[in-house]
Amino acid sequence: MALINEHYLKLQAGYLFPEIGRRVNEFVAANPDKKIIKMGIGDVTRPLVPTVLKAFHEGVDEQGKPESFKGYGPEQGYEFLRKAIAENAYQANGIDIPADDIIVSDGSKCDTGNIQEIFGASNKIAICDPVYPVYADTTVMSGKTGACQPNGYYEGVIYMPCTDENGFTPDLPTERPDLIFLCYPNNPTGTVASKEELTKWVNYARENKSIILFDAAYEAFITDDSIPRSIYEIEGAKEVAIEFRSFSKTAGFTGTRCAFTVIPEELKAYDSQGNAHSVKKLWLRRHSTKFNGVSYPVQKAAAAVYTPEGKKEVKEVIAYYMENARIMRESLNEIGYTVYGGVNAPYVWVKTKGGMSSWDFFDKVLNEANVVGTPGSGFGPAGEGYFRFSAFADRDNVLEAMTRIKNLS
Amino acid sequence: MALINEHYLKLQAGYLFPEIGRRVNEFVAANPDKKIIKMGIGDVTRPLVPTVLKAFHEGVDEQGKPESFKGYGPEQGYEFLRKAIAENAYQANGIDIPADDIIVSDGSKCDTGNIQEIFGASNKIAICDPVYPVYADTTVMSGKTGACQPNGYYEGVIYMPCTDENGFTPDLPTERPDLIFLCYPNNPTGTVASKEELTKWVNYARENKSIILFDAAYEAFITDDSIPRSIYEIEGAKEVAIEFRSFSKTAGFTGTRCAFTVIPEELKAYDSQGNAHSVKKLWLRRHSTKFNGVSYPVQKAAAAVYTPEGKKEVKEVIAYYMENARIMRESLNEIGYTVYGGVNAPYVWVKTKGGMSSWDFFDKVLNEANVVGTPGSGFGPAGEGYFRFSAFADRDNVLEAMTRIKNLS
Repeated sequence: MALINEHYLKLQAGYLFPEIGRRVNEFVAANPDKKIIKMGIGDVTRPLVPTVLKAFHEGVDEQGKPESFKGYGPEQGYEFLRKAIAENAYQANGIDIPADDIIVSDGSKCDTGNIQEIFGASNKIAICDPVYPVYADTTVMSGKTGACQPNGYYEGVIYMPCTDENGFTPDLPTERPDLIFLCYPNNPTGTVASKEELTKWVNYARENKSIILFDAAYEAFITDDSIPRSIYEIEGAKEVAIEFRSFSKTAGFTGTRCAFTVIPEELKAYDSQGNAHSVKKLWLRRHSTKFNGVSYPVQKAAAAVYTPEGKKEVKEVIAYYMENARIMRESLNEIGYTVYGGVNAPYVWVKTKGGMSSWDFFDKVLNEANVVGTPGSGFGPAGEGYFRFSAFADRDNVLEAMTRIKNLS
Repeated sequence: MALINEHYLKLQAGYLFPEIGRRVNEFVAANPDKKIIKMGIGDVTRPLVPTVLKAFHEGVDEQGKPESFKGYGPEQGYEFLRKAIAENAYQANGIDIPADDIIVSDGSKCDTGNIQEIFGASNKIAICDPVYPVYADTTVMSGKTGACQPNGYYEGVIYMPCTDENGFTPDLPTERPDLIFLCYPNNPTGTVASKEELTKWVNYARENKSIILFDAAYEAFITDDSIPRSIYEIEGAKEVAIEFRSFSKTAGFTGTRCAFTVIPEELKAYDSQGNAHSVKKLWLRRHSTKFNGVSYPVQKAAAAVYTPEGKKEVKEVIAYYMENARIMRESLNEIGYTVYGGVNAPYVWVKTKGGMSSWDFFDKVLNEANVVGTPGSGFGPAGEGYFRFSAFADRDNVLEAMTRIKNLS
């Protein structure tokens, strides 16, 4: 008799975005004449830039001629892309990461989820609250937790609340975790981590032989030079950290799909006898057994992000989104909201007024302003009373949404 | 302390294709003037067909304009593609599979590997010997086996030997499996399954509440109308089978990446209390949590395979490969080899002469004819004494390779 993976039964049904979709669809059905402005899901809206587009087309053309046709490529990505990443995203910033430590994939969601598979079920995981739901869900799926408790916390997971009291920057946990998920610039709070803050975590991980799973999907939005763009700017991080990066938000690849994971040669994890094993080797074994590489034309397109023209064009798109963030921050501030994030990060994290719950605020903004945001409580109990606006919208929509919200209050 | 998934330590190091690569590279380094002909790894060589290419370019163009730009798509694939698949690959052949039972992915390797995650570790898996190595490796990774034994078999896996005595068609296992991997047309033996043969398996699975994981990656190579192209041609299969299909071999997508899995609504698996659960729902939960959809332009390209022109063009490519297979079969037969497969399947399975081992034959063919094939023993102990040639080569190379091998003997 075929038996299911019963850990799946522990998963809470209401994944955030489907529930938002349901409420929006219901509203649209009842109000077909209303123009909805979506600032909920963190999805980009600007098209691929010309240089990327040109390379993408060239890649497709190569697939149409016998002499340039590419079949299976290396599972970890073509060397031309891994070299471009190593040189431009790391070595140019003084970070010594070789192309061999970079493994290309089709998304950071896949990578941050799949990485769980190479670690044993007895590992204790630490995650922030509020947090991107995938970290917890994939921890559950891989059998590292107990049941879900009434407060929404899974048994066996170490939660690190991020609130306005601690500046949305978690304290070191009291119980020792084996794997620590950190995301900076943060989704959903828009917080960034200073060099000191990251040094605290790297030192903690070194002392405890823990591994930091560092999600740097929003790195491109950092404009302040004193904020680290990579965890490897911190001394000793190569021995304790995996970094996840993506072309999704950096270069508008959410529908085109390309990302990468950095696992330094130095990084080790242990078997139950205490023997050290190369984490990169384990990940490559998984990657080459369960994945067949990213589409070749997509890899060509991704590499073009690092050409001089590509860099310039992508920077302009980022600046466009960051101007959206500035407008949102200032508009919401003006009408009396307490606002976090939106500087060095594409998310604006807003405290509701008068202790209104996140979902009540969601319904109010949807029904009265016809604007869709994301309820903070959907990211975890500590997000209750907060609301996330995404800066990945068209300028006109941002301006219109802010006017409507102004008229609300 | 971060602990590894110790099941990975059971995996045997020598994955087949890296070892082939090593021996080929060694030969090339020692013989830089020799022209190697590769008929080993099952990778296509013909370019994408014009209609697919045109749609691919159109998809890229859409990503360059704000009004047609696509960000995140549905994780299970766009409806236009799922509908095209359901209508053309199933409904047109009288098989009632709706678009909702189709889940698009970036490869059958990913799907046949990842599917393991939704089933519990106590399931017993049955696989053929010889077999595509990914089934066994992902079974090990997911913790469903014991150690590897001296004969190359993992403890706890039910192996079903396929030999010339049983026509490379496995008998029903004596021990009852929960999950049964079947691949038809078969990789590596090129065997196909008749309606009667598949009916035997469907009935067996129904009696035992087992699930058949049916890998139909080579379905497009079936030219004999009496051979089922889908397991769902068998009555009752929707209650017991998952079908994996791919654009890789059908339409030259090995470097472009698109595939799909069919999980009928009717298919159930059980929890330890004996309650039935929808397998599709579990797979969609995994898919939407750990995957972010296939690149939009790639999905556009894949849908074009089902246009009238696309179908015609793709059929011509398949016919080209099948003519290769015919040439190989007849040439090898002529010089006294016993040859299997190569009809309704792109693989030719050759018995070595005089009991020569698969790797000895590999070395002989490489060193004396400068042709690369795949040693049968690399697919499992029952493949010892056999050799696989792939028909996915250029015609000139196939003719040249056959001439060289003729001169060998």
